[in-house]
Amino acid sequence: MGTFIRNVRRIGPSSSTIDLRFEGDHIASLSPSESAVQAGDIELDGKGKLAISGFVNAHTHLAMVLFRGLADDVPLQVWLEEHVWPIEQQLQPQDVYWCTLLGIAEGIRSGTTAFIDMYFHCDQVARAVEESGVRALLSYGMIAPSLEDRGTAELATSKAFVKGWHGQADGRIQVALSPHSIYTCGEDVWRKAIELAHELGTPLHTHVSETRSEVDDWKVRTGMTPVRYLQSIDAFSVPMLAAHCVHVDKDDIAILADHPVTVAHCPKSNAKLGSGIAPVPAMKQAGVRVAIGTDGAASNNRLDMVEELRVTWMLQRALHEDPTYLVSQDVVAMAIDAGRSIIGLPEKGLSEGAPADLVLFDTDRIHTTPPHNMAAMLAYAANSGDVTDVYVDGKALLKDGELRTIDEERVKSEVRSLLHRIKNR
Amino acid sequence: MGTFIRNVRRIGPSSSTIDLRFEGDHIASLSPSESAVQAGDIELDGKGKLAISGFVNAHTHLAMVLFRGLADDVPLQVWLEEHVWPIEQQLQPQDVYWCTLLGIAEGIRSGTTAFIDMYFHCDQVARAVEESGVRALLSYGMIAPSLEDRGTAELATSKAFVKGWHGQADGRIQVALSPHSIYTCGEDVWRKAIELAHELGTPLHTHVSETRSEVDDWKVRTGMTPVRYLQSIDAFSVPMLAAHCVHVDKDDIAILADHPVTVAHCPKSNAKLGSGIAPVPAMKQAGVRVAIGTDGAASNNRLDMVEELRVTWMLQRALHEDPTYLVSQDVVAMAIDAGRSIIGLPEKGLSEGAPADLVLFDTDRIHTTPPHNMAAMLAYAANSGDVTDVYVDGKALLKDGELRTIDEERVKSEVRSLLHRIKNR
Repeated sequence: MGTFIRNVRRIGPSSSTIDLRFEGDHIASLSPSESAVQAGDIELDGKGKLAISGFVNAHTHLAMVLFRGLADDVPLQVWLEEHVWPIEQQLQPQDVYWCTLLGIAEGIRSGTTAFIDMYFHCDQVARAVEESGVRALLSYGMIAPSLEDRGTAELATSKAFVKGWHGQADGRIQVALSPHSIYTCGEDVWRKAIELAHELGTPLHTHVSETRSEVDDWKVRTGMTPVRYLQSIDAFSVPMLAAHCVHVDKDDIAILADHPVTVAHCPKSNAKLGSGIAPVPAMKQAGVRVAIGTDGAASNNRLDMVEELRVTWMLQRALHEDPTYLVSQDVVAMAIDAGRSIIGLPEKGLSEGAPADLVLFDTDRIHTTPPHNMAAMLAYAANSGDVTDVYVDGKALLKDGELRTIDEERVKSEVRSLLHRIKNR
Repeated sequence: MGTFIRNVRRIGPSSSTIDLRFEGDHIASLSPSESAVQAGDIELDGKGKLAISGFVNAHTHLAMVLFRGLADDVPLQVWLEEHVWPIEQQLQPQDVYWCTLLGIAEGIRSGTTAFIDMYFHCDQVARAVEESGVRALLSYGMIAPSLEDRGTAELATSKAFVKGWHGQADGRIQVALSPHSIYTCGEDVWRKAIELAHELGTPLHTHVSETRSEVDDWKVRTGMTPVRYLQSIDAFSVPMLAAHCVHVDKDDIAILADHPVTVAHCPKSNAKLGSGIAPVPAMKQAGVRVAIGTDGAASNNRLDMVEELRVTWMLQRALHEDPTYLVSQDVVAMAIDAGRSIIGLPEKGLSEGAPADLVLFDTDRIHTTPPHNMAAMLAYAANSGDVTDVYVDGKALLKDGELRTIDEERVKSEVRSLLHRIKNR
């Protein structure tokens, strides 16, 4: 007994529709239309719908939805010191649970089935992922000047989180190790983290070359760019999710291409904070795997992968004055496929045997009339609001526009109350 | 008897709500909350809503929704010669009516109450504007190498359109004169058009310095940039809507600032076609009035002002690596206020006596929780899908998410059929 979606469109050169069948947690078949439904199947009409494998949000801090709109348009240091940090210090584990759940709800509504997240109070993050039914690669963001100064404790927290949650929720939860960055963790902490990643068989997830000043400072301090420094301490000997990589030079790019690195490009956050524009075409041309992430809502202020993939081509084409840069298929693949391998998913999502992580878009809206080829529709015209259904491991998380595993009104209310309590403390 | 919206939020420093009342076609009052409703008023609950004066889409070709997604990711000349022009030659007046209506429907759904449009078969464009209830500054795009070669006829067509429609639909329709550009209209045509604009009291609407090659070619041909050439023929002696202005230098900007020019910045179209990034901060700093437009859906592929204002700050902050560039209030004012004067509207929309061109946003969505200050919500987080109600001249065009003056299903069906017919001709 499975689910059979008749006459649905997919991304590809052909405009003909397919019948898509999934059973249990995996895709059972993709057939030309007019195939026979199997006895006991639930049959759904896919007419006017596009089916994609869900977006992978390759870098985020889900719980930071709490900071959405709290303080925009202020310089980075004011924002951190006067707004974000004072509140983060007050956050209780339960608070992180509700905020993460709100972030997941927003992600589901924009067609995201998997999140690569870094935060703290991670048991609560994992609980929200487990209950909501999404897929995630989670990590605890370690901040430690040295092993003696917080480092040993941070590594122990990370290790306990891996032991407790890696592979849980029927494998939907994977855990990585996250030294937050080179400038917030000492070299001894980094070396121990890399050793631990080898020992536990987990990837690393960190922030790399996000701002020009980070790179300039690091060159002064070590004579190396952040990427070359990470190579020098053997950080690329395990799979790594490298967030941002805005200011990477040709040699950095060659290193990233030569190692099992997935870059998480976060264009809107990089724009809002004035960090710059990552050299995406150069990285892709060199063979670097470049996925797309939203970063946290504090600096975005959305967790909307449809918006994020659109910004990706816009920035590059405008900057390079070339209309054939990063065409629709390229950016769609970045948002859907490029983040899959680091979280242990098969390379192609919409294929027999792959987990049934599926998203349906309504393609019959006024703003998608007349119909496009489907990659172009996603890249140029669709809104996250066009997402009608989301499945992960074959389970419906969004059905006809209604969230099925998250009580949306409750979550909004909890997050609003939390912010009110914190502001009035 | 009017309409009374209780407890609605507005853009501004205060987070307190107001009661907003309109009567007939104008705003009657903006009062602190808990004011008394007047006998006979329709009372609406504005709780959780934001009220803005509607967006002005400062440059578009509404009917080009027909070309949405027809051929993306191809070089400009291929796109024009193999796709757009062959179809445009086949368009009948009735076709332009349906396509314009679809574009208007999309615009209303994203909170746009006024459109500055340039196309052909303009009687049909005007008919769609009249029937749908929106406001517009319309023009016939003249293409004529000289007065002898098409020019006299094009000017006659323009003049007839002004005579027939300027001030019609209770003043909702204004008409401009549009030599399409300096490179598609000869100087004698331009000079006659300027003379005619003075005679008829209408503004000019044209494309200026959209691409680098346009500017380079013009310098070779005349020794002048397009802006300096336009000044040399006295084109700025009447109010002008100058679309694009991507490649303008310091002297050009000084000229634009010194004359009654409204620049229509079209960032997504400029990005998609690889035209570049307009120097918006420099123009604003010099005192140029810069509004925002979508351009046509052929090169966008949307008519979504929420997306367009977001792209505006993103491109500038990313390019200049400065997080305080074009803050939320600035881009919101560009999208709402800057396009008003050229279509004859009072400078501030949400004020007593101004036409009741109002848009309500639902601010209680998962992606706008917790609530922002309202300018930041629009600039950073809202979607066009959050628009619930739209009024023009006090008349509801969208009510609780339903279009009231346009049969949306019919329009979609007509446009789909039209494309099918054309492709199979």
